[in-house]
Amino acid sequence: MAMTGVLRPGHAQVRVLDLEESVHFYRDVLGLVETGRDATGRVYFKCWDERDHSSYVIRQADSAGLDFFGWRVLDKATLDRLDADLQAYGIKTERIPAGEMLETGERVRFTLPSGHVMELYAEKTKVGNGIPLVNPAPWSKARDHGIAPIRLDHALLYGPNVAEVQKIFTEVLGFYLVERVLTPDGNGNAAIWLSCGQKVHDVAFAEYPEPGKLHHCSFLMESWDQVLRAGDIMSMNTVPVDIGPTRHGVTRGCTIYAWDPSGNRFETFFGGHLPYPDYETMTWTFDNFGQGLDYPQRKLHETFLTVVS
Amino acid sequence: MAMTGVLRPGHAQVRVLDLEESVHFYRDVLGLVETGRDATGRVYFKCWDERDHSSYVIRQADSAGLDFFGWRVLDKATLDRLDADLQAYGIKTERIPAGEMLETGERVRFTLPSGHVMELYAEKTKVGNGIPLVNPAPWSKARDHGIAPIRLDHALLYGPNVAEVQKIFTEVLGFYLVERVLTPDGNGNAAIWLSCGQKVHDVAFAEYPEPGKLHHCSFLMESWDQVLRAGDIMSMNTVPVDIGPTRHGVTRGCTIYAWDPSGNRFETFFGGHLPYPDYETMTWTFDNFGQGLDYPQRKLHETFLTVVS
Amino acid sequence: MAMTGVLRPGHAQVRVLDLEESVHFYRDVLGLVETGRDATGRVYFKCWDERDHSSYVIRQADSAGLDFFGWRVLDKATLDRLDADLQAYGIKTERIPAGEMLETGERVRFTLPSGHVMELYAEKTKVGNGIPLVNPAPWSKARDHGIAPIRLDHALLYGPNVAEVQKIFTEVLGFYLVERVLTPDGNGNAAIWLSCGQKVHDVAFAEYPEPGKLHHCSFLMESWDQVLRAGDIMSMNTVPVDIGPTRHGVTRGCTIYAWDPSGNRFETFFGGHLPYPDYETMTWTFDNFGQGLDYPQRKLHETFLTVVS
Amino acid sequence: MAMTGVLRPGHAQVRVLDLEESVHFYRDVLGLVETGRDATGRVYFKCWDERDHSSYVIRQADSAGLDFFGWRVLDKATLDRLDADLQAYGIKTERIPAGEMLETGERVRFTLPSGHVMELYAEKTKVGNGIPLVNPAPWSKARDHGIAPIRLDHALLYGPNVAEVQKIFTEVLGFYLVERVLTPDGNGNAAIWLSCGQKVHDVAFAEYPEPGKLHHCSFLMESWDQVLRAGDIMSMNTVPVDIGPTRHGVTRGCTIYAWDPSGNRFETFFGGHLPYPDYETMTWTFDNFGQGLDYPQRKLHETFLTVVS
Repeated sequence: MAMTGVLRPGHAQVRVLDLEESVHFYRDVLGLVETGRDATGRVYFKCWDERDHSSYVIRQADSAGLDFFGWRVLDKATLDRLDADLQAYGIKTERIPAGEMLETGERVRFTLPSGHVMELYAEKTKVGNGIPLVNPAPWSKARDHGIAPIRLDHALLYGPNVAEVQKIFTEVLGFYLVERVLTPDGNGNAAIWLSCGQKVHDVAFAEYPEPGKLHHCSFLMESWDQVLRAGDIMSMNTVPVDIGPTRHGVTRGCTIYAWDPSGNRFETFFGGHLPYPDYETMTWTFDNFGQGLDYPQRKLHETFLTVVS
Repeated sequence: MAMTGVLRPGHAQVRVLDLEESVHFYRDVLGLVETGRDATGRVYFKCWDERDHSSYVIRQADSAGLDFFGWRVLDKATLDRLDADLQAYGIKTERIPAGEMLETGERVRFTLPSGHVMELYAEKTKVGNGIPLVNPAPWSKARDHGIAPIRLDHALLYGPNVAEVQKIFTEVLGFYLVERVLTPDGNGNAAIWLSCGQKVHDVAFAEYPEPGKLHHCSFLMESWDQVLRAGDIMSMNTVPVDIGPTRHGVTRGCTIYAWDPSGNRFETFFGGHLPYPDYETMTWTFDNFGQGLDYPQRKLHETFLTVVS
Repeated sequence: MAMTGVLRPGHAQVRVLDLEESVHFYRDVLGLVETGRDATGRVYFKCWDERDHSSYVIRQADSAGLDFFGWRVLDKATLDRLDADLQAYGIKTERIPAGEMLETGERVRFTLPSGHVMELYAEKTKVGNGIPLVNPAPWSKARDHGIAPIRLDHALLYGPNVAEVQKIFTEVLGFYLVERVLTPDGNGNAAIWLSCGQKVHDVAFAEYPEPGKLHHCSFLMESWDQVLRAGDIMSMNTVPVDIGPTRHGVTRGCTIYAWDPSGNRFETFFGGHLPYPDYETMTWTFDNFGQGLDYPQRKLHETFLTVVS
Repeated sequence: MAMTGVLRPGHAQVRVLDLEESVHFYRDVLGLVETGRDATGRVYFKCWDERDHSSYVIRQADSAGLDFFGWRVLDKATLDRLDADLQAYGIKTERIPAGEMLETGERVRFTLPSGHVMELYAEKTKVGNGIPLVNPAPWSKARDHGIAPIRLDHALLYGPNVAEVQKIFTEVLGFYLVERVLTPDGNGNAAIWLSCGQKVHDVAFAEYPEPGKLHHCSFLMESWDQVLRAGDIMSMNTVPVDIGPTRHGVTRGCTIYAWDPSGNRFETFFGGHLPYPDYETMTWTFDNFGQGLDYPQRKLHETFLTVVS
């Protein structure tokens, strides 16, 4: 949560090639909870421990990729203020009326110079995590179904103009730069990790010629043991794994990257250091980014740089 | 970090009965890093992964307990604004000049209705965590010395007038109520857990007749495995353990409570759920607080209610 | 597995006060797999990763406790040889015909000087662990149902004449003494931990005036994280917990002790050091047995010494 | 430990290209304990929790690889009996006098049809694990120095005539076949995993045209968390990592493969299932051996098949 009132990654809408195959994957393999379907055919999911109605929405399409990524803000006043701030900065915004997504209020939509569509919204129905608010247990049975991450954690997006994107996030939306990878010549950033609060990142961007590409949506696991269990379940279900299990040097987080049936990469992520906005940015030189990506192996996997959806 | 600009628990100053015995304990058993001693005899420590100069300060005295607990705020403007807000709320504040604590700027001090002395400050020298800012390793050798928590996480304080304390934290300082234990009659709160950001708590208070008492300062561990290692090291050093290892129902965190050589309780803590300010408060009924305290054992350990310093 | 051909703890038959309540407990809370019921009303269970038909059998009775504890031996020749060896040692043995227990061959039964009934047998139908023998996955879905230990690991039995029991196990059956607790006067053993192979213990005995008592049957967990999960499930099901989660000093193993609905104690156990028969025995002095029992707390819990079934 | 009296992998003697560089690596990076140097220049190491004088010995040579691998047997009578059994089977044996290796008794040496030199011995001085035998702590400070495995666990050896090797281990030495990978045509075994007791493997062999090659020596870690820590330390010390961290499908064990400075592969290993000699062998088809090697990735890494020393 930023001091501007941006709270957290709220929802991602992702395109899939075969809806029912994808529902099976997200519900029974990744272990998300299906919370609804709307008239346009979209299917809504949440992680078991999330309290809002939905955080991950899929729709059938001819190509995989990300439709938009939405940020939950504190309240309606914050939404209006950030809308005005974006416009004042020179960014065109659009209002999507309440109800266009299930159980979700009005959204402010805008497009980043990287080609990604972002949204802000202040209202989404709280459906709870299946645990009573009085004398709550630490977890529910949903935690044993599939990989069962606890929340949508962040996304890594590939596109052009990352320096401009960084300015919008830091100067308008209240994010700060936690880590970065330098370009090979050291004069710019090849990739940036941005936090709006106390997470090691809420969103990250990498410079890439094609606009609006999705590298991965990331889901948070509770432990390194749970990352291992995630890898087991991936293999049992012949999910194609990209990288991991391993530790990232960047963020210190533990990870497996894999692909959904449509070729959208996702991550099961655990850990990471715990920054605050007054902390100095950490920098990775490009020649050492292999260690930043895969700390034990010190290997810059080719797919990380080239495969997106 | 609250939207008011309160970032985090910054420092605790704690009284000890024998300074050198305590230095040995905090440095070699708990595994803090000693960062300085001042002219008044105080010894300054930090956790290995903290970047500020110090987070835990001890001084020799005739009785154990907490002198004060300080909060790092965003900047000088925030400090002045919060000072004014506190005064406007009716709380008397005092300025402690920069330099009174080593490497620490001016502090705004005030006393809570519970009798605890709080401080706000905007400046403390960054000394780093011993890891370079360029191509950083995930940890340093300091992580292997003693219990080696990664940060001062929170404190639980016992005193009267907890309802008034809650109002100050939520209405002036920007905290929110994450969890609470009801009084036996259900009409009030016996204990409250307050967060200023995305942690399950930054400070907690329990109603107690005697003012200004310390229940425990808590140090964050990286895993349940590290909590076990902490317990091993406690036993190897004949540290008196109070409760644990176990899981709290309240917060879901994993814990060991133990006492320093002077009788100040401390906690080695891991985990907990991950709230945001829009989340509904979770409530524990007093008759079930045993489960809230020690989830597996469902036992309301007598010492938790009665032993403070 | 001992060089004598004693392989492992094979089955425990335990008395319960209410059969269906106990079936619910062992199947859905402890997470054993029910594998059969016989004409006498006994219910048979195995741990999910065990391959033999059953390892834990319950029958309804007026009092809780252990009927007998059985050892799987290598083959029929071993069974006959050990029977002869026991008789040669002066122990009266009895043959229980094949089929008296479901899917179990002939058993050689004898009573220890501690009052416990032991059995040896060479045949029990292999029903497998639910995972194919070709291209096996590392685990099956059964691992997510209840506490889900992977095997019956050992038992601790209370009774008189422990020194004589030790001689039978070491001189006839091929066990060796891994650890022991001295009596307060240091002249004898208050408790002994015996291994027939490479486990830190396969059975343990403590000196106790009343014969034939069960302290606990122990079930093996895969990790310290799984011990925590076991404690969570115990609390969710209001299972009375005795001690833990904690680490034993004796064996180094991690543990929770709790009671089944009839008052039979059981343990969820992880870890322990890895001895061989040529290793020297480790000794705990009685005055330090608190540390041996509960390493972090260094506490000799009263229930450990006095509550048996 | 087999019923024949073969207890465990006792020592490996490995050739290194630069002795002092290797001493640094094995002592400070892998975290073995140096226990001696002999007149021939060999350096002796043990894992911190092992009790025998040494388990891993290096000597300087022009090429990397394994000189021999030794098995601790129960006693002198066992040594003589196994020597006779080997000779009766048609294997030529040789006696190496006591003292040729530091603190080690007489050895029976023989060469396998795969070209590997094996040894049996009954005596090696117990130097202990640095923890007292009375009231022992669960670990010593040595556990925090480097990767710090707890024991030499097993080795995987590449060479011809694996079927003949299997017969020697199972028919003479008392091992049993835990898992195997079929050849592509399914008519034979490409690799075999053999246990002499209750470990998932004590030694493994893979069919390979060149005799006497070392694939890896494996060192046992205490947890999946410790495997992660091992990977961190490898990266901090620019150790070349081959595969992992990951889980093997074969054995279920968790692993990192890496190379010492001379190109000898080693493994940091945790876990694995817990077989007994009566368990049925598990089989991996060659087309699925990728899953057997790297369970999450289902990838048959080329180096696994081709890089040996």
